[in-house]
Amino acid sequence: MILTVTLNTALDITYRVRGLRPHTSHRVTEVIERPGGKGLNVARVLAALGHEVTVTGFVGGATGRAVQEQLTHTAGVVDALVPVAGPTRRTIAVADTATGDTTQLNEPGPSVTPAEWSAFQEAYEVLLRSASAVALCGSLPPGVPVGAYAQLVRTARALAVPVLLDTSGEPLRRGLAARPDIVKPNADELAELTGSHDPSQATRDARRRGAHSVVASLGAEGLLARTPDGDWRAAPPRAVRGNPTGAGDSVVAGLLSGLVERLPWPERLSRAVALSAATVLAPVAGEFDRSAYEELVNHVTVDLFQRQVETR
Amino acid sequence: MILTVTLNTALDITYRVRGLRPHTSHRVTEVIERPGGKGLNVARVLAALGHEVTVTGFVGGATGRAVQEQLTHTAGVVDALVPVAGPTRRTIAVADTATGDTTQLNEPGPSVTPAEWSAFQEAYEVLLRSASAVALCGSLPPGVPVGAYAQLVRTARALAVPVLLDTSGEPLRRGLAARPDIVKPNADELAELTGSHDPSQATRDARRRGAHSVVASLGAEGLLARTPDGDWRAAPPRAVRGNPTGAGDSVVAGLLSGLVERLPWPERLSRAVALSAATVLAPVAGEFDRSAYEELVNHVTVDLFQRQVETR
Repeated sequence: MILTVTLNTALDITYRVRGLRPHTSHRVTEVIERPGGKGLNVARVLAALGHEVTVTGFVGGATGRAVQEQLTHTAGVVDALVPVAGPTRRTIAVADTATGDTTQLNEPGPSVTPAEWSAFQEAYEVLLRSASAVALCGSLPPGVPVGAYAQLVRTARALAVPVLLDTSGEPLRRGLAARPDIVKPNADELAELTGSHDPSQATRDARRRGAHSVVASLGAEGLLARTPDGDWRAAPPRAVRGNPTGAGDSVVAGLLSGLVERLPWPERLSRAVALSAATVLAPVAGEFDRSAYEELVNHVTVDLFQRQVETR
Repeated sequence: MILTVTLNTALDITYRVRGLRPHTSHRVTEVIERPGGKGLNVARVLAALGHEVTVTGFVGGATGRAVQEQLTHTAGVVDALVPVAGPTRRTIAVADTATGDTTQLNEPGPSVTPAEWSAFQEAYEVLLRSASAVALCGSLPPGVPVGAYAQLVRTARALAVPVLLDTSGEPLRRGLAARPDIVKPNADELAELTGSHDPSQATRDARRRGAHSVVASLGAEGLLARTPDGDWRAAPPRAVRGNPTGAGDSVVAGLLSGLVERLPWPERLSRAVALSAATVLAPVAGEFDRSAYEELVNHVTVDLFQRQVETR
């Protein structure tokens, strides 16, 4: 199975409201709830692609129970979340039907105790023993040490389980030094990490910091990958318009499924780009449009480009 | 015991956010949750005054379980909520620490089926048999007939249980015709009901529509009461500043406890005004400041005024 780790799981709530105006009262006309946090989104896409997936991370409180109840209805996803005393956070997306804008309110997440963090690490090691690959995804809840992902990368590497890291800020910086197989930053995360807004230079820099492969997601421009097998740019055949929520998580699912299926890099990148575009096109945020995916996957442009001489 | 009915219970959530700006993303710095809906607020105040209180209404889903868990920690309040399949609504108050403003997002509540409404009516009738008074509070969830309060008033009157109605719009209009003992509209509800913005005239009109007593809550001006025993204005000794959330529910608790204790009207009104002011003064929304209450209750001004000749 493929393991995905979501230390800061969430109950993602979308409210439809007509005209959000601060300092006034609003009737919510529609409420949509789904399990959230990047690793859970990745798991849903992997399951839809036919993979067996196990999800772990922390879960707690009434919101955590709601997340777990909904996971039982997600075919192909096994729940191995670890209980904590604090409540799983909510994220609230207020979708304004008058303007089309979305306003986001994100709770911080539960405070995780040292004992809970230790219990998670033990459970994680046991799960890794039956995993073909692992994705470490998203932000850290309060209380989890900033070097958490570095530790989890080292454990996976010690057990020879390929590991993909998708996070940002200091947890990404520290995690990179533990030499994950793949990191998947977006343009902002890459710039924050390296100080460079040039993706070509920034991905080279990120590789030098420890990742075996770096796959940067550059929105509508597609992906820029630097790997031991070569460097590629992969782009969708046409620009797509829609809701980009979850597009990055679909990239992770595409890369990880391709890795487990031992596909060559160009095919992994085609799949990741097509899944990402099909996610943008789907009417429900975070889902992907399967027929769009199947049409797009054969038309992604993947160009090998000359690796520049690295200068210091 | 005193019974309070909250057909549309809520999980009241307060978010502290620094600077709410539509179409941006916000980190919530603090999350406060409490059981909500007017009847639950009234029950908390009654319990704090030393009364035995039972709460009923509908409760469902993960949010409903969160409400019920928190109720178990509320001394003096017995939970007799009736389960429904749909989830109890959330209300979200986004408190902007930069401006002091609050932005409110209210979910609509669960869809109640005819079978669930019937089950509630049966449970309500059983509970009434051991009730000394009942308060019917707040909005109706989807699916509950608009004449629901009229029906519940009739059932209480048939069992000779004094009944107070605190709602608005069409449910108030219909409920009035069933002749409740007390209605407690605020200025807006009264104007909507009667078409008059003159509280003196509007309260007379509301009484003519069926209520035995009308007590209008007029914010900082206090209460205007029209009763079979006489008509009074009751006002706090000084203007108070603070958070008015829950002040109306404290008025209901004051009136209902005074009724059960067979206090004369002027004392009931003093208590209601003092509780309301002490709620505005409390640091936590919906709580009341007990020492402020005890000081204020002896200094409320209650003036009997000449009943005007009613003309048609």
